[in-house]
Amino acid sequence: MVEGEIKLLGTWPSPFAIRVKMVLEQKGLSYEYLEDDLLNKSELLLKHNPIYKKVPVLIHGDRAICESLVILQYIDENWSKTGLPVLPVDPYERAIARFWATYVDDKLVTSFIGILKATTEEAKAQKIADTHTALELLEGAFKKCSAGKDFFGGDSIGYIDVTLGSCLAWIKAAERISGAKLLDETKVPLLMEWVNRFLATDCAKRTLPDVERVEKYGRNLQVTTWNVVPAK
Amino acid sequence: MVEGEIKLLGTWPSPFAIRVKMVLEQKGLSYEYLEDDLLNKSELLLKHNPIYKKVPVLIHGDRAICESLVILQYIDENWSKTGLPVLPVDPYERAIARFWATYVDDKLVTSFIGILKATTEEAKAQKIADTHTALELLEGAFKKCSAGKDFFGGDSIGYIDVTLGSCLAWIKAAERISGAKLLDETKVPLLMEWVNRFLATDCAKRTLPDVERVEKYGRNLQVTTWNVVPAK
Repeated sequence: MVEGEIKLLGTWPSPFAIRVKMVLEQKGLSYEYLEDDLLNKSELLLKHNPIYKKVPVLIHGDRAICESLVILQYIDENWSKTGLPVLPVDPYERAIARFWATYVDDKLVTSFIGILKATTEEAKAQKIADTHTALELLEGAFKKCSAGKDFFGGDSIGYIDVTLGSCLAWIKAAERISGAKLLDETKVPLLMEWVNRFLATDCAKRTLPDVERVEKYGRNLQVTTWNVVPAK
Repeated sequence: MVEGEIKLLGTWPSPFAIRVKMVLEQKGLSYEYLEDDLLNKSELLLKHNPIYKKVPVLIHGDRAICESLVILQYIDENWSKTGLPVLPVDPYERAIARFWATYVDDKLVTSFIGILKATTEEAKAQKIADTHTALELLEGAFKKCSAGKDFFGGDSIGYIDVTLGSCLAWIKAAERISGAKLLDETKVPLLMEWVNRFLATDCAKRTLPDVERVEKYGRNLQVTTWNVVPAK
């Protein structure tokens, strides 16, 4: 284990930064959180993530780690004997966790953000359908990974839990902005139970932003950045 | 370590399947390779990768693992005491290796395949520029990761080596098809030395397809799948 002060560069609505906060919480690690401004990126961000210039960046001592899924695994491996584990121990279960965490980012995030970015009704309907498909596949993944326990990670919050859980405020905000029902208990009953269970944890309560605030932020992005005429 | 017969579903030109072959070679593991047909996908592929329906799929006993980077890590973790290591031991070095392997797939592969898919000269020029940028960043990564040794992984082929190395036949084929110089020793001298060193290994010789064959395959894809009018 490498020692050193931990700093996290993030922005408050970023699910990618939120999941790092979640894992730092689960590990019980103290860290300094530095809010960045994506319209006026900090020198620290540009210095430590020159490739993507994106949050989150974890600064540990004099080393920087970028990309949220890489950071989560770094925290788990560097502090393997501290707090709760992030990834399972079994190699096959680790592979399954990595598969689904990447699926969340590659398919689910692009789908629900796509709803907000869509400039035609047709494109919006497609992204809503894609979001439903992704959530239904995650329902199946939950059944398999949790094996009847509370979380994807079993008895405690793990890698898939934080990857998906960090998106919940945005998914709920996307529902409000678009008017589409995304989290539908008739379609994904087990996942909805997981959502309620996850949101009730201290970890989620301490790290997830208010849905209202994300909704307002999302509506503003539609107008200022994505040039989408917002729905009524 | 879980025991069981190893089967790999792949297609011969897929860099994603080739890198799995490379790591199985490096670990000295015996496996059965099953060539799939992407125009007529096998029942085995559809059964074991219902989400993406893509190769590679590693079948180990009665378990299937999908997505090449997930498979590489599974092999390294399940056979941690067999053959050569894939990922470094140090958590920070592991994070750096994961960052660059993902960079290869997210930025480099999409850039050089983008050259072949481009339908306008402007789009093609942009993808050539993107490929140069990606290779130049990988030159910097090589300098840092290898620390003066032969490979990204140090003394032996590791995670970044196979991820990037598995693309070499395609990069050379893209050069021939597009007429653009991509691997330019005046721009990426250290990386070019690595390319030559990597191609001289038994691992590369046994797993990489002939550039001529990939070139022919790529030209055919341009006509049949990508609707690109091929360059002279």
